[in-house]
Amino acid sequence: VFTKNTNRGRGRPPGRTAEGEATRERLYRTALRLIHERGYDAATLREVARRAGVSVALLYRYFPNKRAVVLALYDELSETLERQASMGMPGGRWRDRFDEALSLSLGVLAPHRVTLRALAPLIVSDGPDGIFSAATAFSRRRVQATFERAVTAAADAPRAALAPALGRLLYLGHLGVILWWLLDRSPSQRATTALLEAIRRILPAASLALRLSPVQTFVLAVDRAFVEGLLGGEAAANAPAAVSAP
Amino acid sequence: VFTKNTNRGRGRPPGRTAEGEATRERLYRTALRLIHERGYDAATLREVARRAGVSVALLYRYFPNKRAVVLALYDELSETLERQASMGMPGGRWRDRFDEALSLSLGVLAPHRVTLRALAPLIVSDGPDGIFSAATAFSRRRVQATFERAVTAAADAPRAALAPALGRLLYLGHLGVILWWLLDRSPSQRATTALLEAIRRILPAASLALRLSPVQTFVLAVDRAFVEGLLGGEAAANAPAAVSAP
Repeated sequence: VFTKNTNRGRGRPPGRTAEGEATRERLYRTALRLIHERGYDAATLREVARRAGVSVALLYRYFPNKRAVVLALYDELSETLERQASMGMPGGRWRDRFDEALSLSLGVLAPHRVTLRALAPLIVSDGPDGIFSAATAFSRRRVQATFERAVTAAADAPRAALAPALGRLLYLGHLGVILWWLLDRSPSQRATTALLEAIRRILPAASLALRLSPVQTFVLAVDRAFVEGLLGGEAAANAPAAVSAP
Repeated sequence: VFTKNTNRGRGRPPGRTAEGEATRERLYRTALRLIHERGYDAATLREVARRAGVSVALLYRYFPNKRAVVLALYDELSETLERQASMGMPGGRWRDRFDEALSLSLGVLAPHRVTLRALAPLIVSDGPDGIFSAATAFSRRRVQATFERAVTAAADAPRAALAPALGRLLYLGHLGVILWWLLDRSPSQRATTALLEAIRRILPAASLALRLSPVQTFVLAVDRAFVEGLLGGEAAANAPAAVSAP
């Protein structure tokens, strides 16, 4: 369903050569390392150029600003999650698959926590780089599709409309967990570990609750509002369950 | 419990006179109006000074930067919510009191949605103006206490430790609803109205679920993690239920 690299051109100048790709990759890694060391605000593209031994003009051709680095990171991380999830998701119940998707996602993000903390404001903004904006839609859909498939391709997937709806709400909940993790000031983010453990323990009860009519109505209603209000009416992550089922 | 105006000094220079207070109020309203018209980024303090007919130097004595205006707004809104909640909260069940607190909060914020959208990034940042930072703690505690009291002072308040824990999680959930509302792109934010309606309809089931041991364990565990990780260990909103019970 997803063609690799269709969106990798972000920040890359026209004329894709192997050399150009290698330069881009080196500049990208240098920028990430600097942001990690200095923090997002203090890192400058000027210093990235200096460290990488290229002119600022050349760097700007690849990354016109720091946000371009960030969008490339989002692209890379979502691609990694998608790949890991396509290989590593357990069969069986949706709650185990959701739990796994959540763990995979946090595992992919973990090495970049310092950088991502600086990005949290960007993510919730309604600007061009917001999590629900058009500019980031390609990366977002990959992640959203991972959570939708966690439910739709599960052995105990709820009936038709309920499955993708639940998947999308779990994706939304997962964004909440990431935000919590980014704001978590406890040592080694152990409060996030505790949250994940609490979620894991309540999932069997949540799974039972999903058989109740008021709970199903709730899921469908909130999903409908989520799609209309936050996703801009675009419900489908374009990932047919059949193709990506384990 | 709360002494009014103890924190109203933000952005106000030493030497509090009635004239100084009137000037501050006028500059504050002018700044808010400009932010509302132009958006947060485009609004400049220079233009605020021009509109208000004062020198930039004088304005800076009251509001050294745009963030100071924002903190004053947060202070004002939290005070309004606190006042309205102390007068207008229904007695009876916690779920009705929570529903009312949620409606009151969104009602207080509604006229400032444009301004608040610009602030969403600030709110989730881990910087000095973040929702869980020290600089905003005074305003935050007022709101948090409102939600804690919605549960602790309810006729059907759960047993001791569970009541404030539930109140804090409802406060956290309420922040999620506000974030949703700020990102909501549907006409008249009707997706938020739909979300509120869905929450209202599921609350009776949630209330029943709270009698189940795994759900109680979940609430206590998540609250413990919330307090440690996000609130920096500071659990108490310093609002003894007995004092503020209706």
